[in-house]
Amino acid sequence: MITLIKDAAVVLPDGKTQENDIVINGNKIASIGKASAELKADKVINAKGKLAVPGFVNAHTHASMTLLRSYADDMNLMDWLNNMIWPIEAKMRKKDIYAGAMLAAVEMIKTGTTTFADMYGDMEQVAQMTIESGLRGVLTRGIIGVAPNGEQAFRENKELFDNYNGAADGRITVMFGPHAPYTCPPDFLRRVAEAAKERKAEVHIHLAETKGEVDDCLKNYGKTPMEIMEDTGIFDCGTLGAHCVWLSDKDIDIMAKYKVRVAHNPGSNMKLASGIAPVPKLLKAGVCVGLGTDGASSNNNLDMLEEIRLAALLHKVNTLDPLAVPAFEALKMGTEYGAKTVGLNNLGRLEEGALADITLFDMSSYAWQPKFDLVSLLVYSAPANSADTVIVDGRILMENGELKTLDEEKIIYEAAQSVERITA
Amino acid sequence: MITLIKDAAVVLPDGKTQENDIVINGNKIASIGKASAELKADKVINAKGKLAVPGFVNAHTHASMTLLRSYADDMNLMDWLNNMIWPIEAKMRKKDIYAGAMLAAVEMIKTGTTTFADMYGDMEQVAQMTIESGLRGVLTRGIIGVAPNGEQAFRENKELFDNYNGAADGRITVMFGPHAPYTCPPDFLRRVAEAAKERKAEVHIHLAETKGEVDDCLKNYGKTPMEIMEDTGIFDCGTLGAHCVWLSDKDIDIMAKYKVRVAHNPGSNMKLASGIAPVPKLLKAGVCVGLGTDGASSNNNLDMLEEIRLAALLHKVNTLDPLAVPAFEALKMGTEYGAKTVGLNNLGRLEEGALADITLFDMSSYAWQPKFDLVSLLVYSAPANSADTVIVDGRILMENGELKTLDEEKIIYEAAQSVERITA
Repeated sequence: MITLIKDAAVVLPDGKTQENDIVINGNKIASIGKASAELKADKVINAKGKLAVPGFVNAHTHASMTLLRSYADDMNLMDWLNNMIWPIEAKMRKKDIYAGAMLAAVEMIKTGTTTFADMYGDMEQVAQMTIESGLRGVLTRGIIGVAPNGEQAFRENKELFDNYNGAADGRITVMFGPHAPYTCPPDFLRRVAEAAKERKAEVHIHLAETKGEVDDCLKNYGKTPMEIMEDTGIFDCGTLGAHCVWLSDKDIDIMAKYKVRVAHNPGSNMKLASGIAPVPKLLKAGVCVGLGTDGASSNNNLDMLEEIRLAALLHKVNTLDPLAVPAFEALKMGTEYGAKTVGLNNLGRLEEGALADITLFDMSSYAWQPKFDLVSLLVYSAPANSADTVIVDGRILMENGELKTLDEEKIIYEAAQSVERITA
Repeated sequence: MITLIKDAAVVLPDGKTQENDIVINGNKIASIGKASAELKADKVINAKGKLAVPGFVNAHTHASMTLLRSYADDMNLMDWLNNMIWPIEAKMRKKDIYAGAMLAAVEMIKTGTTTFADMYGDMEQVAQMTIESGLRGVLTRGIIGVAPNGEQAFRENKELFDNYNGAADGRITVMFGPHAPYTCPPDFLRRVAEAAKERKAEVHIHLAETKGEVDDCLKNYGKTPMEIMEDTGIFDCGTLGAHCVWLSDKDIDIMAKYKVRVAHNPGSNMKLASGIAPVPKLLKAGVCVGLGTDGASSNNNLDMLEEIRLAALLHKVNTLDPLAVPAFEALKMGTEYGAKTVGLNNLGRLEEGALADITLFDMSSYAWQPKFDLVSLLVYSAPANSADTVIVDGRILMENGELKTLDEEKIIYEAAQSVERITA
C-alpha cells in the first residue's frame, strides 16, 4: 500500500517547514520531497494548505478515566482520590473501562495524537481499543503494591506483557507499571524490576509528583523517589517517569545517569496544584522530556496541542525567561522527545525510514492567519480542531475531520450508558 | 424584535445550570424560564444540547495586532518591541489597521467573545470594525506621551471620545488610553486625567506589567506605578489596569481603595515571561479582575476560553492550592467580572433586564462527555470551536457556527494583502 501526501507544508526534524510530498510505503515514510510523476499511489491525499507534523505522542495518560471527566474538580488531591475517584473506580467493570478507553480514542485521534502511553486496570480492554482504533499504544497495568489486589495486578501486568507485547502489527508495546513510590514499597519495586528485566520490558511509574510524596519518602526511607528507584533496580530497566516535579539536583544527576525519560504533564500538574517541574533544567541536563495529558479527570482533556502550548508558556513565566522553551522545542516534546520517552525510537520525526505516524493540520481558518511562522501558529495559536487527517503506521484513522475506524456517536452513547450504570 | 432561545442549559449567575428558555426583547433579556406557549417570537433558536453562557468579555486587547500574529515570537520583551513590533507597526496604514481589526473580529465571534476593550492607534478603524461586526467595543486611543506624536495621539483620543462614545446604538464606549507609566510621565498623566474627568470618561492603561517597569518607576520617581496613578489623579477617573503583575501589598490597598479594575492576561504574561499576577490575593482584597488576551502577537490568539482555562490553572499551581481559582470563578472573570472591569455593569450575567450578549456552546462532541458538570466541561475541557451561536445586543452575529455579519474568506484575503504591503 502506497500513500502519497501531496503538497503539504512539512515540518522537518530541524524545525524548518517546506512544501513537499510525503510518500508512505506500508507503515513507513519512503520519501519526503517532490514525488516522481511515475509514482503509482494507491491513495492520494491532497494536502495543499495543510501542515504535516509527526503525530503527537501522549506520554502519560489513563485513557479509561475519560469516563470520569468533570466528575470531580477543584479539590485537594487526596480528597479527590479517596472520596471521589477511587470509590467510583471501584464500580467500573470491564465494559466501562472499554467505554472510557474508546471515548479517549475518539478524542486522541480528533486532536492529532497517534501514540499514547497508558496505565490502568483491566488493560486488555485498552489493548482492544488500541487494536480497533488503529492508535499506537504503550500499555502498562497499574500496580498498587500495598493494595489487597497488588499481587494480582502484578500477575496481570506479566500476562499483559506475554499476551500483548508486539501485538497489533507491533503497534502495542507493554511496560511494567508499579504505580508510585508511595503505593509500592521498595521490596515490591525490586520484584517488579526483576520481572521487567527478565522480559526486557521497561517501566512506567509516577515519580515525585507532589512535595508530600517526596517528604514521605524521605521520612519513611531516608531517600528521595529517584534514590529509591536507583536503589531498587527500577532505573536499570529503562524508565518512563511521569510528572517528576519535585527534584533535587542530585535527583536530576541520577535521572541523567540512568537515562530516565520524563513524561511532563503541565495541565494536570497545574490543575491539581502539584507544582512546576524543572523542565528547562532537565533538558539542559540531557534528560529526555515528553509530554502527557494525564487522565481526563485531572486535566480535563486529552488535547496534546494544549499540553504543548502549556509547556511552552508555563516554563517561560516560571523562569521569567521568554526563551525558556521555544515553540519548536515544545513541539518536539510532544513528538520526537515524546516518542523516545515512551521507548519508541523510530518515530516522532518526519524523515525517510521513520514509522508513518503523521498528523495534517488544516491551516485555512482565522487562527492560522497571517502565516509568518507555521510552527508558531501551531504551538501558540491553533485550536485543537485544526487536526484534519491522522495517519498511524501508514493507515488513515481520520481524513478531513472524519473518523475512519471509530463511530463517535455510538461511542458517546455507550459512555453515557456506562456512566448511568456506575452512578446508579 | 423578540428572539426565543429554547431549551438551552443556562448558566445562571449563581453558577447553577438549568434547562430553560431565554426570551430576548430588543437588546435585553426579557426572561429566563419556561417561555409562554403564546409568545410570538420573530426568531426561534433551538438550543437543546447547547450551553448558554454570558458572552465573553476580552478586557484587554489590541485587535489590529492580529495582523502581526506569528511575526515575532520567543524573544525578550524590549527586543521584540524595539526590533520587530514597532518597526513593522510604523509601516501599518489605516487600511492595515482595519484589516487586522476585522481578522480579530472574526476570531472573537468564532470563539464566543461579545465585548472587547481595545487600545491602539487609528482607532476609528477599530470603531468601524465594531460597527460592522456587531461586537461591543470599549475603545481607547493608545497614547505614548514621550513619543513625537504624543500630543497628536492625546488629541485623537479626545476626538475618538467626542465622535464615538455611545455610538453604534451604545455598543461603543470610549476611554482614555495613556499607554503606561514608562511611556507617559506624571505631568502628562495629570493632563490625561483632567481631560478624562472633564468628559466623565474612564482610563485604560498598562500597569506593573514587568518587574523592570516597577524598578524604573521606583528609580525615576520614588513611587510604584500604582502610587504614580494615585498621585496623578488617574485613579480618580475609574481605571481599567491591564496586567498588574508586580504589586506590593500597599499597591493592592491603593487599587482596592480606588476600585481599580484589573485586566489579567495570563497567556500574554506567560508567553512574554512577564510574571504571574497575584490574582487570588486581588480577588480576596475585593479588586475586580477580568481577563484579556492582549494582542495576538503576544498570545498568540484571541481565544477567551483559553484565558479562562489558564486563569483557572495558573493560579492553582502558583499557590499550590487546587482551590485557588475554581472553574466558575474563572468563568466569571471572563464574563461578569470582565464586564465590570471594562465599565459595563448591565452585562455579563444571564438574568432578566441584562443586555442580551449570549454565547451558546454546542455540547455534542467528545470533549463534552460525560456530562457530570457543564461549567467544568466548558472551563477545563471544551475546545474553543464549541462556540456555536453568538448574540450581541440582541442581534445574532453567529448561528450554528456561521458568521452573520462578516465574510471570513474575504477578511483573510485582505489581511494577507495587508501583510504583503507592510512586509514588502
